[in-house]
Amino acid sequence: MMNFKKLLEHSSAIPFIDQARFGIEREGQRVTHDGKLARTDHPAIFGDRTYHPYIQTDFSETQVEMITPVTDSIDELFQYLDAIYDVTSRSMSDEEMIWPLSMPPALPQKDEEIMIAKLATFEDVLYRRYLAKEYGKRKQMVSGIHFNFEFGEELIRSLFVQQTEIQEFAAFKTEVYLKVARNFLRYRWLITYLYGASPLSEANYFVDELHPHEPVRSIRNSEYGYTNHSNVKVSYASMEQYLADIEQMIEEGKLSEEKEFYAPVRFRGGKRVADVAKMGVRYIELRNIDLNPYHHLGISKEQVQFLQLFLVFMLWAPEGSSVDEWVEEGTLYNNRVALEGPLDQTAMYEEGLMLFTQMKEMVQALQHEELLPTIDKLAERLNNPSQTIAAQLYTEAQSDSQKAVAVALGRKYDAESHERPYQLAGFREMELSTQIFLFDAIQKGIQVKVIDEADQFLRLQFENHVEYVKNANMTSKDSYIVPLIMENKTVTKKILAEAGFRVPAGAEFTSMAEAKRAYSRFAKEAFVIKPKSTNYGLGITIFKEGASEEDYHKGLEIAFREDTSVLVEEFLPGTEYRFFVIDRQVQAILLRIPANVIGNGEQTVAELVAQKNQDPLRGTNHRAPLELIQLGDLEQLMLKEQGLTIDSIPAKDQIVYLRENSNISTGGDSIDVTAEFSDAYKEIAVAAVTALGAKVSGIDLIIPDKEIDPSTDEKAYGIIEANFNPAMHMHVYPFSGTGRRLTLAVLKLLYPEVWALNHWNEEEK
Amino acid sequence: MMNFKKLLEHSSAIPFIDQARFGIEREGQRVTHDGKLARTDHPAIFGDRTYHPYIQTDFSETQVEMITPVTDSIDELFQYLDAIYDVTSRSMSDEEMIWPLSMPPALPQKDEEIMIAKLATFEDVLYRRYLAKEYGKRKQMVSGIHFNFEFGEELIRSLFVQQTEIQEFAAFKTEVYLKVARNFLRYRWLITYLYGASPLSEANYFVDELHPHEPVRSIRNSEYGYTNHSNVKVSYASMEQYLADIEQMIEEGKLSEEKEFYAPVRFRGGKRVADVAKMGVRYIELRNIDLNPYHHLGISKEQVQFLQLFLVFMLWAPEGSSVDEWVEEGTLYNNRVALEGPLDQTAMYEEGLMLFTQMKEMVQALQHEELLPTIDKLAERLNNPSQTIAAQLYTEAQSDSQKAVAVALGRKYDAESHERPYQLAGFREMELSTQIFLFDAIQKGIQVKVIDEADQFLRLQFENHVEYVKNANMTSKDSYIVPLIMENKTVTKKILAEAGFRVPAGAEFTSMAEAKRAYSRFAKEAFVIKPKSTNYGLGITIFKEGASEEDYHKGLEIAFREDTSVLVEEFLPGTEYRFFVIDRQVQAILLRIPANVIGNGEQTVAELVAQKNQDPLRGTNHRAPLELIQLGDLEQLMLKEQGLTIDSIPAKDQIVYLRENSNISTGGDSIDVTAEFSDAYKEIAVAAVTALGAKVSGIDLIIPDKEIDPSTDEKAYGIIEANFNPAMHMHVYPFSGTGRRLTLAVLKLLYPEVWALNHWNEEEK
Repeated sequence: MMNFKKLLEHSSAIPFIDQARFGIEREGQRVTHDGKLARTDHPAIFGDRTYHPYIQTDFSETQVEMITPVTDSIDELFQYLDAIYDVTSRSMSDEEMIWPLSMPPALPQKDEEIMIAKLATFEDVLYRRYLAKEYGKRKQMVSGIHFNFEFGEELIRSLFVQQTEIQEFAAFKTEVYLKVARNFLRYRWLITYLYGASPLSEANYFVDELHPHEPVRSIRNSEYGYTNHSNVKVSYASMEQYLADIEQMIEEGKLSEEKEFYAPVRFRGGKRVADVAKMGVRYIELRNIDLNPYHHLGISKEQVQFLQLFLVFMLWAPEGSSVDEWVEEGTLYNNRVALEGPLDQTAMYEEGLMLFTQMKEMVQALQHEELLPTIDKLAERLNNPSQTIAAQLYTEAQSDSQKAVAVALGRKYDAESHERPYQLAGFREMELSTQIFLFDAIQKGIQVKVIDEADQFLRLQFENHVEYVKNANMTSKDSYIVPLIMENKTVTKKILAEAGFRVPAGAEFTSMAEAKRAYSRFAKEAFVIKPKSTNYGLGITIFKEGASEEDYHKGLEIAFREDTSVLVEEFLPGTEYRFFVIDRQVQAILLRIPANVIGNGEQTVAELVAQKNQDPLRGTNHRAPLELIQLGDLEQLMLKEQGLTIDSIPAKDQIVYLRENSNISTGGDSIDVTAEFSDAYKEIAVAAVTALGAKVSGIDLIIPDKEIDPSTDEKAYGIIEANFNPAMHMHVYPFSGTGRRLTLAVLKLLYPEVWALNHWNEEEK
Repeated sequence: MMNFKKLLEHSSAIPFIDQARFGIEREGQRVTHDGKLARTDHPAIFGDRTYHPYIQTDFSETQVEMITPVTDSIDELFQYLDAIYDVTSRSMSDEEMIWPLSMPPALPQKDEEIMIAKLATFEDVLYRRYLAKEYGKRKQMVSGIHFNFEFGEELIRSLFVQQTEIQEFAAFKTEVYLKVARNFLRYRWLITYLYGASPLSEANYFVDELHPHEPVRSIRNSEYGYTNHSNVKVSYASMEQYLADIEQMIEEGKLSEEKEFYAPVRFRGGKRVADVAKMGVRYIELRNIDLNPYHHLGISKEQVQFLQLFLVFMLWAPEGSSVDEWVEEGTLYNNRVALEGPLDQTAMYEEGLMLFTQMKEMVQALQHEELLPTIDKLAERLNNPSQTIAAQLYTEAQSDSQKAVAVALGRKYDAESHERPYQLAGFREMELSTQIFLFDAIQKGIQVKVIDEADQFLRLQFENHVEYVKNANMTSKDSYIVPLIMENKTVTKKILAEAGFRVPAGAEFTSMAEAKRAYSRFAKEAFVIKPKSTNYGLGITIFKEGASEEDYHKGLEIAFREDTSVLVEEFLPGTEYRFFVIDRQVQAILLRIPANVIGNGEQTVAELVAQKNQDPLRGTNHRAPLELIQLGDLEQLMLKEQGLTIDSIPAKDQIVYLRENSNISTGGDSIDVTAEFSDAYKEIAVAAVTALGAKVSGIDLIIPDKEIDPSTDEKAYGIIEANFNPAMHMHVYPFSGTGRRLTLAVLKLLYPEVWALNHWNEEEK
């Protein structure tokens, strides 16, 4: 037998020991908030289940299956699992939530009322009908975690090159996973002990006398769980034997097909069993993990870290020489542990101690001493069964019922996921627009990968169609030149003016004399003098009602101090609106107003601010769509100018502004006014964005009076600026008015084919 | 009669007085370097004359016509005229140049040898045949300047609103230009006096006795120039009268069509005369300006400034009450002045003094006192006829011949335009790549407008197809996401790796412990440790031959000081090549080597550097494709390390490097090696750029040995970087090897339709 222990401990393998790839499938029943099995269909908002990579149904229509992509780290695994859970939870009916236990909630008395998943292909439905008939519908309603694990390519290669026994890499890999599987089957009782979490069943789960009569560690992992009939026997001695046995079981009619072989560990490789034979095992799937009710995801990061350690240990640890006996022994021990009372010391106590001792030995040999505390902590649970998950759940259930515990936990997780709807769990460090965009992509079943979190860089894929997106608004649909045009105010103005749009009229001067001579052009109008190249407001003078010649000269002097080119430009009066255009449609119009409170004749300014800041949409550092209103020097100065202090009590309906600027980042309000505009203005915004060659842009219009028909008044609007990286979140979650899901419009622009496949109505978009 | 003087002097008009639009058409005969009329066709490199906006032929095949676009300033006008002249001059056969005089060079004795322009439409050829028959071919060979002038829209509007006499703006504009035309016809003798420049004719110009027998001021502007037959009479009293008269001349067969009416000033508006009637005169065209032989463009900026002043003066100055007489008087005076001896005082001396006095009065009334010196300077020429252009040319011609003077001037201008072929006259402040790109666009007849000079922003147009281009390489053909991908090294690497390209292998670490454990992965290879986010070389350690564990730790410490994320990456050995890909083709491959000199056993390092710096391709501040080699501290240190000083004499063929880095900006050499590479590497570069979604990119490959077939060795190359704003000029004008005209490839990517219209062979591309 191959000495994997020696291979692992070799210095060339050490750097790769913790290299692995991970994937999780987490099932969960949809239930109402009072813990009754949902009677609704799988939410239509997810679209067609034929392709959805993240959110599927398992056996029944109510059993959601959340599937992470394959990741290279545990942190990334949990980012996706968290996000997919969040999307699932928030996309369901408001009356429903995810049941947090492996054991299903109370089931209907009648079998017919358990809905088989309404899948698109008839074969899939037929297979579920067969399972229902063969094993009963009730056992299919149990949920759990499927954990997919692959050793790092470089790790296996570093082991492979050390030995000469096996010539082919694929065969070597298979050997690795065969040993892991055998040892895992032998020692999996420890996982059942630590993480078993199905001590009790709910009403109508067991319909005959074949069930445990006392609370246990894991019904699901015991002989009362969902297992193959006892006449199904498969050997793990070699891949040839394993595959031959399965084939024989199918020939003998004991299994309908390979996937019916329900082992706690499965070999995975390609689409079909034959692929595994040809190309070697690529990864293994553990299916014996109960849902951890104390984690909203059903499994914690610490659990996965231990599972990884445990699987490396399975490769490192010696195995019995008689393969089939070794595996059968394991099945026996596991069933024994599963059926022990959750608070009892396990009969496998001694072997458990030995395993932890060996694990400690291993992590030292493999230079992963940082895992020692984890091992010690889990080893401690051998002495304290009350610390196991099953024991905790059982104990809590004693004071009321398991159902009550589950409902309380389910409601808690559900409430948490709804708390900050503008964020996406797992990706809270990213910009809000990207979080919302990620939410939508996951919901709609478009594969998405964060390829640079700090840079808001996403890779999307649907079938073979790949797109890259940055900041949720920069896509392949716009051309390289577009942002360069918008970045250059002069160029933008020239293009818009040439296309017939109104932009502030003006002139550029490179000498004082030339500029002075132009005085009479501007004298009586509202105008602004500014250095050509500055963004920080330096050297700018605004004359809202014209200027005396002396003031005009002063303004020029100030501007010429900053630059050799000075612009004198018409100042457009009116209100500034942000028109957000995507794919030739105005998707949102936003008005931003400075930080303010409205008096009620009773509360002080400070109290009104504190109250307004209660809005869950307000936060700090751009982690929320609105910022908290401050009461700093600038705000107090602003109050002073109005003859107020923070302790003044404004009259009822009196609007008190706390800032001059309308930036959202200084506590301003965002107000969606999309519906208040006639098509005429929307058409102008669309045409202007189109003239600039853009598909996605936020364009700022100054409009003195939006009731005026712009075709009748050439000064009805003026275009100030077009933005190539416009914020989206403020439109999705405005302070008031209707939220506009711009992220979905961008997604649709990129993937019209996904919309073509589905029947989403306008509201769902 | 309208009092335009009063209108102009009103304060509301003052700011707009100098507002105007300009255009120039400059004709010129193609001649050989010894002053003989060219016998070649119009250069094919300009493509089809049907559409070329800048470079056309006039009457004969040898008579190039250079046409500027309409500009808003004189500076801009001269930028374009300079550029178009430069392109024309450098696109002609090396044996040819532009004749600098209005009077043609010696003409063939036989009429048949004067080639009528080979135009595409038969109508155009027919018309020229008609002119040849009606006026003789020889007179058609004269060249000149056509000056198009339009008063600023705001200027005319400010005059219009002051009066109530004329209700329609179009009619008012026509009135403005009618007055200007009448006064111009009356006073144009002054222009002939100042700028007349055709004192003598060359052989075979006059073939009968009807010609001046003494040198004059301007043959071209005299009755011996190209004028209509004397029976053609047109009144300028009103637009109705003017148009009716022309129509009658046509009816009577005295003119074949309106454009045959050859007046020194013409009204322009639309495509046809009828348009002028309907929409008013839009601008006027002066046709009486001789080529100024003392300016390579045939006209100087000062001349145009005076023409503008003169035209405003024509509007301001009083006019005679009897319109037709007024005009006829002018014709008489002009002919008189044109035929005066170039050194004689003019008979119109008194009127001239009066005109200059009035002009001075006007510029004071209009607050343009800065023009007073110009007026004084020109007025002085009334007293000193020898300062006039005609007098200068005549005087110089006395010492040899007019032909000799013309050949010398022609050669000088030709040499100047060839001096720095990597620059484009008029736009020398722009980046070299953009200058070269502008050159190509003008040559190929694609309309181009610099919309922001400092920002290298161009607007191109061919028929209705508009494109914007920045830095000559950023276009609408690339998508917004492409530069964002390339800007992010992590994202670029991920995409390339996923697509199967070799990029430096490596790992990212966020803890020292984790990074230390990876030691054995890198120990024996060439590798580099660097902080994730730095561009300035801070915290980077390169180990070209692996590292001891101690050194590895030291490198990590240095990197972790700069960032919380550290990359340890494979260091790829080999030579770095820049592959420039445009539209799925490798257009150029460049090798850059550090600043160096090659010894000859005789000269010192300092002398060798001085000699190498003589190369006209070397300059400073990116104004040339290569930079001068410096001998500063860094270079001297580098010499010292080699045991040399600037006074050492390197052995023959000894290469002495003066820099470690191969940047062109520090004196490095650019070597085109496109032809040295097999298709295999080119295909890799194209595929990688395509995987990144780009159409235009400079991608850097490390190649240890370019003779190795990359399909046989997975380490034959590694991709270091893809650039989204790659410099182009260094490929077009390399230090050695073939120049690759990348700018043309970009132009063709944008405008394939222009290539489809022409029959340019590969070489011309």
